[in-house]
Parts: sequence; structure tokens; C-alpha cells
Amino acid sequence: MAIRYEFIKACKQTGARLGRVHTPHGVIDTPTFMPVGTQATVKGMSPEELKTLGAQIILSNTYHLFLRPGHELVEQAGGLHKFMNWDRPILTDSGGFQVFSLSEMRKITEEGVQFRSHINGDRLSLTPESATHVQNALGADIMMAFDECPPYPAEYEYVKQSTQRTSRWAERCLQAHRRPHDQALFAIVQGGMHADLRKQSALDLTSLDFPGYAMGGLSVGEPKHMMYEMLEETVPLLPSDKPRYLMGVGSPDALIEGSIRGVDMFDCVLPTRIARNGALMTSQGRLVVRNAKYASDFGPLDPECDCYACRNYSRAYIRHLIKADEMFGLRLTTVHNLHFLVNLMANVREAIREDRLGDFRDQFFEAYGMAGNESGF
Amino acid sequence: MAIRYEFIKACKQTGARLGRVHTPHGVIDTPTFMPVGTQATVKGMSPEELKTLGAQIILSNTYHLFLRPGHELVEQAGGLHKFMNWDRPILTDSGGFQVFSLSEMRKITEEGVQFRSHINGDRLSLTPESATHVQNALGADIMMAFDECPPYPAEYEYVKQSTQRTSRWAERCLQAHRRPHDQALFAIVQGGMHADLRKQSALDLTSLDFPGYAMGGLSVGEPKHMMYEMLEETVPLLPSDKPRYLMGVGSPDALIEGSIRGVDMFDCVLPTRIARNGALMTSQGRLVVRNAKYASDFGPLDPECDCYACRNYSRAYIRHLIKADEMFGLRLTTVHNLHFLVNLMANVREAIREDRLGDFRDQFFEAYGMAGNESGF
Repeated sequence: MAIRYEFIKACKQTGARLGRVHTPHGVIDTPTFMPVGTQATVKGMSPEELKTLGAQIILSNTYHLFLRPGHELVEQAGGLHKFMNWDRPILTDSGGFQVFSLSEMRKITEEGVQFRSHINGDRLSLTPESATHVQNALGADIMMAFDECPPYPAEYEYVKQSTQRTSRWAERCLQAHRRPHDQALFAIVQGGMHADLRKQSALDLTSLDFPGYAMGGLSVGEPKHMMYEMLEETVPLLPSDKPRYLMGVGSPDALIEGSIRGVDMFDCVLPTRIARNGALMTSQGRLVVRNAKYASDFGPLDPECDCYACRNYSRAYIRHLIKADEMFGLRLTTVHNLHFLVNLMANVREAIREDRLGDFRDQFFEAYGMAGNESGF
Repeated sequence: MAIRYEFIKACKQTGARLGRVHTPHGVIDTPTFMPVGTQATVKGMSPEELKTLGAQIILSNTYHLFLRPGHELVEQAGGLHKFMNWDRPILTDSGGFQVFSLSEMRKITEEGVQFRSHINGDRLSLTPESATHVQNALGADIMMAFDECPPYPAEYEYVKQSTQRTSRWAERCLQAHRRPHDQALFAIVQGGMHADLRKQSALDLTSLDFPGYAMGGLSVGEPKHMMYEMLEETVPLLPSDKPRYLMGVGSPDALIEGSIRGVDMFDCVLPTRIARNGALMTSQGRLVVRNAKYASDFGPLDPECDCYACRNYSRAYIRHLIKADEMFGLRLTTVHNLHFLVNLMANVREAIREDRLGDFRDQFFEAYGMAGNESGF
């Protein structure tokens, strides 16, 4: 097997679990947050900066790399790790979510999906087999089975057909996988907001013995309590000796609540995307540094933070850079937000180790200034 | 005096001089190239990256900082060094060049210049006194006297009047200067492409005993041989115990030819601006990494370079980043071009020390693939 999940302990207060995922490119402490490097780069960041802020694994997008520069080129370069100079673990997604959210004129059949590139309009297709082979060429430590992520809301009958097809596709991905010894293929549980479909999806996929399981199709516009209900229905059906990955989730409250419900891995573009708009995650909650009130504020973005941006620059300087459209401003806000989430997960792990994740959640939510458990993102 | 020029030796082959400028924020080895940080940041770079590639001094633009975020704010922050987290020397220009090249509806009188901000159309003015006070607030180690940079070509009579006014303005700057003990005010020799006006300007200004002298109004569209002639007319009239600064020049050939003619300091946006278009300065000449022929070229930008970009990334990867509009691509090309020029000047200094700058020039020009001494930039 390419990867191995090591269970360390469960939090006595919440049931959240502390563990490690051993991969060909090193160990990931879980629960963990994975920064997103869509086009073989985490926007604005160097690999060294990601390491300095504590990132142990990054995610890259199969759909984007398939379109540009092409998986054959990345393979020729020696694989994604070498191409982008990142020697720690990488996870590539399946391309499914982006085909459905970004491409044009898509047509879904049992065989796969035909679509037009959002870059140049080229007619392209991805099937369970080709998406798997693309990911084999990219060479990530963890790859994802090709799936359909149904929209929210969607008709029950549509979600049912789609979820069953995703399970059939997962089996084809497993068959097509060329490098099971150094790349771990995870399956994706779908089922929309329907507990019975989620359960059926989990049962179908766990019968196939994947080295890890993801939950997809969540955080797509539904209220958060609904996402948490779906987690509560699904996680108990997943094997306890495999990692569990909640896709596309990155708000601070959902990372904590997800961990409490037994999730080990998370990813999201949220911290990097909002950083580019000058919005920061801080220990006191959301801060929009573009605002005029920070023009002559010479304190750090977050007084409790020790990231590179907070140690060396003021809100006034970062606001100036962002108002003046300077790249370095986006670097600083991105460093800060990624550090915030990576450090949050380190704190979550420490709280699990000390059986006090429930207390940690309550204190964090109070300081973060949230009504209930919404983080304002 | 805020700064001191230390002469080390002259190259026996060319007459170029090796020296050091001692400033309140450290020593600058000369001849030197100064990266430009227009808006209190060298586009895309961190201060640590600039230090790693060997930059000893950077330039920032008075006009831009006057408009945004305002010199009072920078002063409140503790000065430009602290604001931007750069503890090595800084030079601020006078604002003159930008007032004439960027602002709108400008009106020049003996008093100064009235203009409209290119950002928001505000009516503003700069005079010799206010430009000096703005620079006092910014707090750079070296500041420049407010000047007019006449266009090229221009009528002799216009250039004559303008140059004489610039000399009168220089005297007013000297009078207005509030911090002569920790900020050195340089005068700017003008005179267009007219040897007699350059001479008169040099004589007028040197009679006022500034701690350093710049040559402005060159590299504004004239053929390079004309710029070199103007240097040959002007430099011998400048005091040998003060630094000499050629403004706005940054092509590799002109840095070498300028050094040979006795120049100590240079600045230019060229390396950072062309980097953002994917154009590189390399030991084999100009390389446009966007070009399709580099799509699967897994070699470094410049095989003879040991900068961060060349040590870790391929032409194929950097081309991918630039084609995909990724910030990190611009960081890598910027690092490379700045390293190239900073390292070129280190090589120039070494060649002066060893009395072989003429040989170095010939070898460099041959490798760089230039017709005559033009670098293609």
C-alpha cells in the first residue's frame, strides 16, 4: 500500500481523532488542512514559505493541470513534485468537481464526461480511466476517484442516479490505477443531502477497500448544520483504519466541527482566495485590511500571530500594498491566512491529545466572535 | 555628513573606479545597481529575497509615495525603512521625473510644478522645498534635489532655460533640507544632449558642494553613443571624492559602459518590468521564456546562474506559471533578473580590482550575443 493511517488516540471530550498518514513523501499529522495549489503553485507562495508556515501536504487540481500544461509534460518533467519543487506529500483531486463547475457544454454519460475547456474551448473528455491515468502521470501521493458532484439543491432521483454512477466509476478507477504501490487512490462518498444515499454510497465504496475515503458534494451552498448531519451519517460507516477527507472545507469553524466528527483531512481555496481580496482570518475574527480604519494602524494583522507577515509588517503597510495593487501585499495576506489555518489544526491536534477539543472549540468561537458556529466566511 | 565615499582603486585598463559608499544604514560597494521599489516594495520581492540576491541599496519613488500612502503616514510609521522592513540603505528620487512623465495637466513655474494625480485627479504641487520635505519625512539615506527632466528631443533654448532653473531649484533644496546629518542630498546634472549645457550644469551644481551628484535626463530615447558622450563630457567635471549616479539606466551593456566612464551608481525598472513580461537577462543574452520553444525545456533559465530560480525551477515550469498568470512565475523571473544585474556589478567590481574591465566587457558582449554594445533591451 502506498500510504498507511496510524491512529494515535481519540479525544475523550469529543471523539475527534489524532493520527498520522504515512506517505511516500513523508508524514502528515492529522487532522490537517491542505493548502490548494491549483495550477502546480499555491498562489503567490514559494514551497519554502509553505514549509515555514507548517504545511505538510498540498492539493493540486487535476482538471487544471490536464488542460495546462498537460499531464504528459508534468510526467516528462519527472512528476508534479519535481516540476513544482515540492518534496512533501501532494494530493490531486479527480477533476470531477472542476469539470462540473468550470467547463462548458458538458455532457455526462456512463462512459464519462465530454466538455469544452474553459481556457480555449477545446473539446475534451475525462473518464474514470483517463482521470486515473492523468493522476498516475502527475504522480501525487494521494489521488481521487473520478466522481460527479451533484449541484445543491438537486432532485432526489437525480442525486440517486448520479451517486450510483459515481460508485460504478470508482470501481473502474480502481481497475485502471497503474501505480497502487506508490499512489493511494481514495474514493469519494457522494449522496447530496440525503442520508440514505450517503449511507448507500459509503457501503458501496467501502466494499471495494480503497486506502482512504473522502466526502464530496458538501459545502456547496447548504446550511452548515446540514453538512454536519451528513458527516454524522457518513463517518461512522467509514473504516477506522483509513484516513477520512472532507473536500472543499476551510472555514475555521467547519475545520473544528469536522475534526470533532472524525474527519482527518480538509482542503479549501478559502484562505488564499479571501487573502487576495485583503480579508484575513485572525484570532479576533474576520479583518478586512483594505478598510480605511486601518490606514494608520501600525499593529500587526493579528496580535496573537507569529507568522512572517505579523512579525514584520503593519496593517497600514499591508493595506497600502493592497490599495496600490502590489503583489507583495497578496503574499503577506496569503502567508497569514494559510498560517492561521495550519496553526489552527496544530492547536486542534494538541487539544485532542489533551482531551479538551470541546473546550478549545468554545473558547475559539467566543474569541472569534461568531454567532453560533458560523465564522463569517 | 550623512554619507562618505571611499575610493579604493581605478582599473588600469579602463579607468573605472572601485569604491564604497558609507551610509547610516550600511555600506554600498560601487559600482552598484539599485533595484527599484516604486511604491515601498520591489514588485513581488520580500526584503529577505533582495538581501539573498545581494542587493545593498534600493530606490523608492517620492512621487508615488507622496500620492499614496502619503509621506506623513510613512513618517508616522517610523520612516520608510521601518514601514517596508528594509534595514539597508534607501535612495529616494526627487519626484521630478515622475511629475513630468506620469501626472496630468502639469504647469511649470519658477516656484515649482502644479499637476493632477494620475491616481485620482487631485490637484497637487511639488516645489524644491516640498519635494525636499517629503523626502525628509520618508527618511531615505540618499535623497535627490527636485529637478526638471526635459524631454528628448527638445529645443536647445528650452533645455537651457530648464537646466538653469534646475540649478536654481537645487540651491533651494539644499536650503530646505532639514536632516543633512543623516540624509545625503544629491544634485542632478541636466542639460539634455548638449555638452555645453551639461558642463554649465555640472559647474553650477558642484559649486554648491552636494555630497553626491547624479546625471539625469539620459536614457530617455537617445542613441546610446550619445548618452556615453554626455557621460564623457560630464563625469570629469564631478568631484572625485563624491559618488556619481547615472539615473534610470539598467541594460547590462550600459552598466558596464557607464562603469568604464566613472559612474558608481545605477538604477532602473528594466529588470523587474521585463521580468513581468517573461523576458530574462541571461549570460547568453535575452530569453523570452513565454515562447513555445521552452514548453518542454527542463533546463534552468540560465545554465550559468545560481539564483534561487535557476537552482530550483525549469524553463518549462516558469513558462507554465507565466502562461497561467501565476504570481509565483513573476517572482521567479524577477529574482533572476535582479540577481543577474546585481551579480553583473559584482563581476564588474572584481574586474576593476584586477585591472581587466576592458577584457570583461569584450567577453561579456561576445557571450551576450550583442551587435556592437547594444543588449537588445
